[in-house]
Amino acid sequence: MAEKITPRATDYSQWYLDVVKQAGLAENSDVRGCMVIKPTGYALWEKMQRGLDRLFKDTGHVNAYFPLFIPKSFLAKEEEMAEGFAKECAVVTHYRLKAEKGKGLVVDPEAKLEEELVIRPTSETIIWNTYRNWVQSYRDLPLLINQWCNVVRWEMRTRLFLRTAEFLWQEGHTAHSTQKEAEEEAHKILMDCYRRFAEEWMAMPVLTGPKSEGQKFPGAVYTLCIEALMQDGKALQSGTSHFLGQNFSKAFDVQFQNEKGQREFAWATSWGVSTRLIGGLIMTHSDDNGLVAPPRLAPVHVVVVPLGKSDAERSASTAAAQKLAAELRGLPRDEFFGYESLNVKVDTDFDKSPGFRFAEHELRGVPVRVELGPKDLEKQACVIGRRDRPGKEGKEMGVPLTAAAGRIDKLLRDIQTSLFDRAKTFRDANTRTANSYDEFKKLIEEPGFIWAHWDGTRATEDKIQADTKATIRVVPFDRPKETGKCMVTGQPSVGRVVFARAY
Amino acid sequence: MAEKITPRATDYSQWYLDVVKQAGLAENSDVRGCMVIKPTGYALWEKMQRGLDRLFKDTGHVNAYFPLFIPKSFLAKEEEMAEGFAKECAVVTHYRLKAEKGKGLVVDPEAKLEEELVIRPTSETIIWNTYRNWVQSYRDLPLLINQWCNVVRWEMRTRLFLRTAEFLWQEGHTAHSTQKEAEEEAHKILMDCYRRFAEEWMAMPVLTGPKSEGQKFPGAVYTLCIEALMQDGKALQSGTSHFLGQNFSKAFDVQFQNEKGQREFAWATSWGVSTRLIGGLIMTHSDDNGLVAPPRLAPVHVVVVPLGKSDAERSASTAAAQKLAAELRGLPRDEFFGYESLNVKVDTDFDKSPGFRFAEHELRGVPVRVELGPKDLEKQACVIGRRDRPGKEGKEMGVPLTAAAGRIDKLLRDIQTSLFDRAKTFRDANTRTANSYDEFKKLIEEPGFIWAHWDGTRATEDKIQADTKATIRVVPFDRPKETGKCMVTGQPSVGRVVFARAY
Repeated sequence: MAEKITPRATDYSQWYLDVVKQAGLAENSDVRGCMVIKPTGYALWEKMQRGLDRLFKDTGHVNAYFPLFIPKSFLAKEEEMAEGFAKECAVVTHYRLKAEKGKGLVVDPEAKLEEELVIRPTSETIIWNTYRNWVQSYRDLPLLINQWCNVVRWEMRTRLFLRTAEFLWQEGHTAHSTQKEAEEEAHKILMDCYRRFAEEWMAMPVLTGPKSEGQKFPGAVYTLCIEALMQDGKALQSGTSHFLGQNFSKAFDVQFQNEKGQREFAWATSWGVSTRLIGGLIMTHSDDNGLVAPPRLAPVHVVVVPLGKSDAERSASTAAAQKLAAELRGLPRDEFFGYESLNVKVDTDFDKSPGFRFAEHELRGVPVRVELGPKDLEKQACVIGRRDRPGKEGKEMGVPLTAAAGRIDKLLRDIQTSLFDRAKTFRDANTRTANSYDEFKKLIEEPGFIWAHWDGTRATEDKIQADTKATIRVVPFDRPKETGKCMVTGQPSVGRVVFARAY
Repeated sequence: MAEKITPRATDYSQWYLDVVKQAGLAENSDVRGCMVIKPTGYALWEKMQRGLDRLFKDTGHVNAYFPLFIPKSFLAKEEEMAEGFAKECAVVTHYRLKAEKGKGLVVDPEAKLEEELVIRPTSETIIWNTYRNWVQSYRDLPLLINQWCNVVRWEMRTRLFLRTAEFLWQEGHTAHSTQKEAEEEAHKILMDCYRRFAEEWMAMPVLTGPKSEGQKFPGAVYTLCIEALMQDGKALQSGTSHFLGQNFSKAFDVQFQNEKGQREFAWATSWGVSTRLIGGLIMTHSDDNGLVAPPRLAPVHVVVVPLGKSDAERSASTAAAQKLAAELRGLPRDEFFGYESLNVKVDTDFDKSPGFRFAEHELRGVPVRVELGPKDLEKQACVIGRRDRPGKEGKEMGVPLTAAAGRIDKLLRDIQTSLFDRAKTFRDANTRTANSYDEFKKLIEEPGFIWAHWDGTRATEDKIQADTKATIRVVPFDRPKETGKCMVTGQPSVGRVVFARAY
């Protein structure tokens, strides 16, 4: 079992890596910058995919799949994209290896590609090149397409889930006949899919709004984002939705005939979230005992731990545990758990001490643990413990076995709400207001978000980042109406924006 | 709408491409050998993934994710694998492009990788390199892991779904402490997952058994397969499950301590099915009107088509259609449809003629169509048509609206069975026995499977292929006990094997 997890207070970075490793979520592979997503980590991702995919489909989107390879010339067609991604991409130059005596396998120089292929860092180019043939008339629009896939960006400094050379994500690419419709789409995805998913499934409160010019996506007219606050007070950009204007339709000549018979370029959005969300989930909820997973995304919902010393005790408690597990698995499926049955594990590893067994399930983030010992069984009862409140505080003693399944079902729903509330309370407690640049420089040394006035220019944004390592995280949609003066230049500001140091 | 589909009798190959294109399943991309899987095609794949994934999980498997990139040296470690895949792989040699004046983007020679990376053609090497650190003791075994991902094999002659440079698949990779357990695993996957999925979800009957030596996977001790017969009488290898012995554990030094404290190499299996199955589904069931999708995998289960000339008629029939659709969507979820609600479409495209609308839904393979015209509505009834029996034969007139949802639910289940039965009848009618090589050479010019005696040698197998283009598809598990003489050499044979020309 687990080595010790570094406490968060000692070294948050190391704590994060310890949790990722010891909860069996991911590890570095022998391929530079690429991770292996281990079964528990992948189970989280699968549940995230299910939840998100449902939200995309409920808003009218369908899935498709486009090639992994992007011809070099495609990348070159959209200038900002070329600039943004060319410097960190994996390039395929050959299509064959051959055996050479004494050298083993070598690249076959005769199998050189005429045009190099880049592994997709994002798929706007190949997709808009395809859309050209799909769009003739306004009747062909909108195209509301999403793709689940892997992408590669040759990052030099990587960190499990948060920044890796290869990662998994979804990327939506939509085409519209009007600017208005495209802008509405970008907003709808942010608010109805990403915000809802973050808050309702991940129990992770987010701020929503546009990025500043300095933080937007290469090729976008503007970028909207969901932005979350991690336990160490750093911000995590958790999802982005871009209004791309006609940049890509012009680069790839995607025109349609409108209702008046005129030719127009289509309007575009793109939007994505990735396995980075798993990092966000960990850093929003987990504690010094390991992973805390919100019930709607937990790989295992409930673990039932029968206890006992003698064989007779063990077989009695195991039987009761199996019975309860079956009852839990048989609860009616509903939307809350994505119409899946509860995943319930019975831990019969009597060779290990109860304490060891409990610690193992805590480490892996199982939301609810049921203990079934001989004394409980005498009373036809059990002990129910909640992961989000370790120790005695979260224990309910003597729950009658006949009432246990119902109680657990309710408890799982309560934990989901309670995790969200706790994270929101934390965020609000770590959100401050700065009224001068001096005050800002002091506050930025503390964890959290800072609301401050800014003059709206790239120059000031860059200066603040150079001085303090803080960036503008978001210009919140719901910011209070409040004019003021930029804390740096004294120029007028129409409202505060949110700064933080970020992952 | 649709151009005309080439009839199967005229040109089966062209018919296949027409269906793939016009039903909106896939198309060739501008990247050589790579396809775009379009929304309807991808919806089929998503349903296949769901069904298969459930079968894998029910047999104790979990999902994980391993890197896209394989270091060249890994591929070289297992000799047969290197030989099998090195000659058709995409090779990444650089990690950066740069802008050069007058030339646009060029590969940056300073960003050359120390060791080239191959895009995974299959992941045994990277996975067994990872397993080395996961396996110390027999207690760590078995590892029962599956991965859903994309792979690349630089095929020179490609064909949508059936053979493409990039394709989507699942690959299972398991590690065991005994040979027996590993062999049982390879068989279990074949029979309990692949065979069941092919027959119960795809409604595609399959033969099961080992491949001959000439047809096995590079690196396998033996390969088991499910083999199906397409409508044109050619065979399609639809899924394979390999017993790998200790080949990979030895190549990657994956040893464990057994119960007696001795070090042993682990035993391996791998197994996969791919988007090729979509090709199999099309060529098993579809007809000259387009796609026929088995209900358990159909992207849309039911289309309700309101009819009418006047606005009043149209709004009345649309209202009734919406009501029926809602009723169908609200039917209890069950295992048959993977606990998803029925996907029901209401086609209100009154601008097009009824015939045109019906043809469009036939083309896309919707299993059940409901027609709701003014005369039907007068009688509070509708017409129900089944896709697998186009025209009058498959129409049920005057079904009362109150009974329609129940009738359709039952009909969908009936269609599933009926498609399987039809495909099996076809296969059985196209399965023949050859008792001499002359007879074989005559029969092989007709479509279908041929059972014949073979002496078990690679030399004879190769000769038969050279002479007739037929290969041994499978040595069926359930072949009758019947000794005989090889049709080519006259040497003894312990039972007939199944030959065909194949995709």
